[in-house]
Amino acid sequence: MRILGIDPGTSLIGYGIVDINGKNYRAVDYGDLKTGVNIRNADRVFDVYNFFDKLIKKLKPDKIALESLFFFKNAKTVIKVSEIRGVLLYVAAKNGIEIAEFTPLQVKQAVSGYGRAEKAQVQKMVKLILELDTIPKPDDAADALALAICCANTVSY
Amino acid sequence: MRILGIDPGTSLIGYGIVDINGKNYRAVDYGDLKTGVNIRNADRVFDVYNFFDKLIKKLKPDKIALESLFFFKNAKTVIKVSEIRGVLLYVAAKNGIEIAEFTPLQVKQAVSGYGRAEKAQVQKMVKLILELDTIPKPDDAADALALAICCANTVSY
Repeated sequence: MRILGIDPGTSLIGYGIVDINGKNYRAVDYGDLKTGVNIRNADRVFDVYNFFDKLIKKLKPDKIALESLFFFKNAKTVIKVSEIRGVLLYVAAKNGIEIAEFTPLQVKQAVSGYGRAEKAQVQKMVKLILELDTIPKPDDAADALALAICCANTVSY
Repeated sequence: MRILGIDPGTSLIGYGIVDINGKNYRAVDYGDLKTGVNIRNADRVFDVYNFFDKLIKKLKPDKIALESLFFFKNAKTVIKVSEIRGVLLYVAAKNGIEIAEFTPLQVKQAVSGYGRAEKAQVQKMVKLILELDTIPKPDDAADALALAICCANTVSY
């Protein structure tokens, strides 16, 4: 099974694709999409759709794991991230791919066994689980890989 | 010029299409899309895209006016409405139609001349401006028509 994890932010959207074969996890690809800060909202969502539509068509994930928003400090940020989430939900539906949502707590729990784990600890576990030589960069890509691993755990066991 | 106003909510999205010819305003169509309450997020945005994509292709607006979110009481609501906003921004961009965003205060100001006008007063003005026999129902459709009128004002004068 191939899972695409997506960690959306306002200016940077991390993604990570993981193949799962029993207990064997392999990172297929990871990276990020930078969206301009001074870009119009409509252009931002247009870019996001096109980028992920291409990625999905190229790498054909069986499932998509998306980080869910739970609490936040800044109203403007939550509105922009949610707009991006809306388009990501749409691009998944349009491509007929099931999308599952996970809270940061669920992701930390799944990857490190502890819901309140530090960011660095989660990234270290992602490196270990995927047998990577280094911790994936940027942080948002590592978070997206963690999301994919979390999603794999919920379907495998 | 033809303007499509959209007032997005979590379970009901009002729309209103207004033709502007100089100082002459005419309501072409208005109504609402009901999205299920217990529907999955991905299905909701998929339905929203398809509904407005069809409406845009059928009625060919020159511009879309969208209500912008500014403040809110409930975090869950703002996330869901913003997801819908993201898809509406995308469907506009996909169809190559310019989308403008207006705050409720701007809409009230444009339609009734007073930013803190009551809802009923705004609806009465919408009926007057569009020379309708009755106040458009549901409220969200009247709000969407007010958005279209507000947008027309900003481009005409």
